Amino acid sequence: MNISASTIRRLSIYLRQLEGIKEEGRETVSSSLLAERSDVKATQLRKDLSYFGSFGVRGLGYSVDDLSSKISKILGLDREWRAVLFGAGSLGQALAGYKGFSKHNIRIVAIIDSDPTKKSKMIGSLPIEDASDLKSMRQRVRAEIAVIAVPGEAATALAEQIVAAGFSGIVNFAPVRLKVPPQVALYAVDLAIAFENVTYLLTCKKEKP
Amino acid sequence: MNISASTIRRLSIYLRQLEGIKEEGRETVSSSLLAERSDVKATQLRKDLSYFGSFGVRGLGYSVDDLSSKISKILGLDREWRAVLFGAGSLGQALAGYKGFSKHNIRIVAIIDSDPTKKSKMIGSLPIEDASDLKSMRQRVRAEIAVIAVPGEAATALAEQIVAAGFSGIVNFAPVRLKVPPQVALYAVDLAIAFENVTYLLTCKKEKP
Repeated sequence: MNISASTIRRLSIYLRQLEGIKEEGRETVSSSLLAERSDVKATQLRKDLSYFGSFGVRGLGYSVDDLSSKISKILGLDREWRAVLFGAGSLGQALAGYKGFSKHNIRIVAIIDSDPTKKSKMIGSLPIEDASDLKSMRQRVRAEIAVIAVPGEAATALAEQIVAAGFSGIVNFAPVRLKVPPQVALYAVDLAIAFENVTYLLTCKKEKP
Repeated sequence: MNISASTIRRLSIYLRQLEGIKEEGRETVSSSLLAERSDVKATQLRKDLSYFGSFGVRGLGYSVDDLSSKISKILGLDREWRAVLFGAGSLGQALAGYKGFSKHNIRIVAIIDSDPTKKSKMIGSLPIEDASDLKSMRQRVRAEIAVIAVPGEAATALAEQIVAAGFSGIVNFAPVRLKVPPQVALYAVDLAIAFENVTYLLTCKKEKP
């Protein structure tokens, strides 16, 4: 099954909105309400969900719990994922403290930084380590995902070491394009994209009469 | 014109890929190559671009420069956007130092934090300020966009002040759902979503025989 990155992203957004809807005490939700909250058309929502089988009951909408747990399962969030964070600068510190990860079953289990002055300092409950042997470190902490939060100029060489160490997934926050073998799942985070949604909306508004 | 957030996001991604293609020295690009680099189907790419008029020459593909500048214009990136950063913790510091913003015409012009111990400390070339009057501060620095990088528990009250101060756009990094009037453009950044693309891909792989 070849699902686009846009669809996966929307599934994540549906899941966020379902969490909000659940907090409001609702047990069921119509596709039109969930679509509206997620800022997509209802046809788009139904199409996205149809890739993964049939959901919902005609006229009753979706069970909030049922749909949440199905989307969680599709996204692989029905189990814990262990990640190693590379880079203990301001971005690394921000990621280490980010509350949104644990909520979605993503757990940072080690923090690596090559700066000797940072060695053994703590971020939360984890010490900053300088791992010379990434493979044995990865095996020791049983991590599959590497999070790259080092400066751009260091990221390319680090990514090669990460791949060689046997990580199967990389989330890259460094502002450089990485090349990894096709068997490694790579997602590049571009923080400027968030701004571009806003600048687009503001530009549209100004062009209206 | 009611363009979905997914389309806007893909336009940002096409722009990134066009920058990479330009760095490789190419002057034209086929829709199939640009689509492949952007991880979308070529039909999707052509559909996205068709919202904004006709691009490209049949058989010759797109001019890289021309398409880049048209997408930049659509996204409002043909001018500078001035933003105020709220929160000088680790996330705020990471955002203040993020090189990807200036590249896309987004400029952080002031940094606000209510912690008195941070007052007058510098992040890069900007002092940390404690603004009691957000409206006059906004007018002084001529900013339209507010970036929220404060802890979740402080974000809701801050967003109300930001709206009252007349900011027209908000990029929210705090892990809480904000409610703002419809005339304010809001984009919520959820850093966990990047991980979910990777956990999805890793989950798919494991399910394959």
